[in-house]
Amino acid sequence: MNAIAEFTIIPIGVGVSLSEYVAVCEQILEESGVTYELHANGTNLEGDWDEVIDAIKTCHERLHEMGVPRIATQIKIGTRTDREQKMQDKVQSVKSALGKRKENL
Amino acid sequence: MNAIAEFTIIPIGVGVSLSEYVAVCEQILEESGVTYELHANGTNLEGDWDEVIDAIKTCHERLHEMGVPRIATQIKIGTRTDREQKMQDKVQSVKSALGKRKENL
Amino acid sequence: MNAIAEFTIIPIGVGVSLSEYVAVCEQILEESGVTYELHANGTNLEGDWDEVIDAIKTCHERLHEMGVPRIATQIKIGTRTDREQKMQDKVQSVKSALGKRKENL
Amino acid sequence: MNAIAEFTIIPIGVGVSLSEYVAVCEQILEESGVTYELHANGTNLEGDWDEVIDAIKTCHERLHEMGVPRIATQIKIGTRTDREQKMQDKVQSVKSALGKRKENL
Repeated sequence: MNAIAEFTIIPIGVGVSLSEYVAVCEQILEESGVTYELHANGTNLEGDWDEVIDAIKTCHERLHEMGVPRIATQIKIGTRTDREQKMQDKVQSVKSALGKRKENL
Repeated sequence: MNAIAEFTIIPIGVGVSLSEYVAVCEQILEESGVTYELHANGTNLEGDWDEVIDAIKTCHERLHEMGVPRIATQIKIGTRTDREQKMQDKVQSVKSALGKRKENL
Repeated sequence: MNAIAEFTIIPIGVGVSLSEYVAVCEQILEESGVTYELHANGTNLEGDWDEVIDAIKTCHERLHEMGVPRIATQIKIGTRTDREQKMQDKVQSVKSALGKRKENL
Repeated sequence: MNAIAEFTIIPIGVGVSLSEYVAVCEQILEESGVTYELHANGTNLEGDWDEVIDAIKTCHERLHEMGVPRIATQIKIGTRTDREQKMQDKVQSVKSALGKRKENL
């Protein structure tokens, strides 16, 4: 089952700056083979459900090993059976629809 | 790795009423052995990371089998290594802190 | 515009225990007149969109005043025009659907 | 109070394709003056708390006017008092931390 997902990981109890922990996750993603894209509020993921989830689980495990006592993660995960869709297709669909709206106004 | 989680599943393309689909998930949870509690904006879950995630994945698979073409799910998942915590502990901690605040005012 | 919402507030940079901060928010909600219900992964809210959002904004302001340097909040907010719905109606709809499923099996 | 936010709006009861509705929201954002960036799982926003939230509220109102009977939106909203931060700073912080990690390995 293919999935398009997003996760935002918040390490708790390690101070106010979280970027070094998010960087650990980015490196895990790099090694995972999952397609991913960092943005200002999380990281988008694309791949098989299990691969996507395993990458996120590995982030939790790795951060705990580094001494992070508590982690709160939010995941959005979408699956569909009506058609194949990639992350860039989602953005493109909206941009096309926006273009058509403007033509018609 | 133990987790406290929440998921909100939104079947898309099956009309405006979603309760019958959420009920399918509740039944999957009932059979899964994971501790769960339905509330107005999702279902709280407590258990091993893999069991929690597997229950959510099974919901996606089952709803797609029922003909739902697209599903968007949001998951919150928290893990901690500093101490064991159950769902009811989280609520109780806040209630205790609230009680103390009121005593001190 | 009436809304059913949920928010989970995560104060960052104040250590691992967050309950005292969530308790401040609960007290703000108590004073706000918005219907609310604390659960293990957040607080459910019901009321006018502006009242609901204002209560959450007040939490951010109050926690920053208390010295919290950074706050990450997740909100789910739902509105509908097809019918009036209360938080307890959402739970009840799922329970009814689950009951019907079991009768039919 | 400045905020960095993300919202994902899910119109319910209007079929499986949602891009035309998301495009309406993008147009609202264009007119709002709020800084925004569409990505595969939502739209990132940056601006004053009230402006950000008002833009999202206007999306709900406009979609309901277009006949969408039910809308579920997820918002992430972050505020901080320790320093000014823009959306691109968040991404840049992680990329810098990732670069440093790799140098040290």
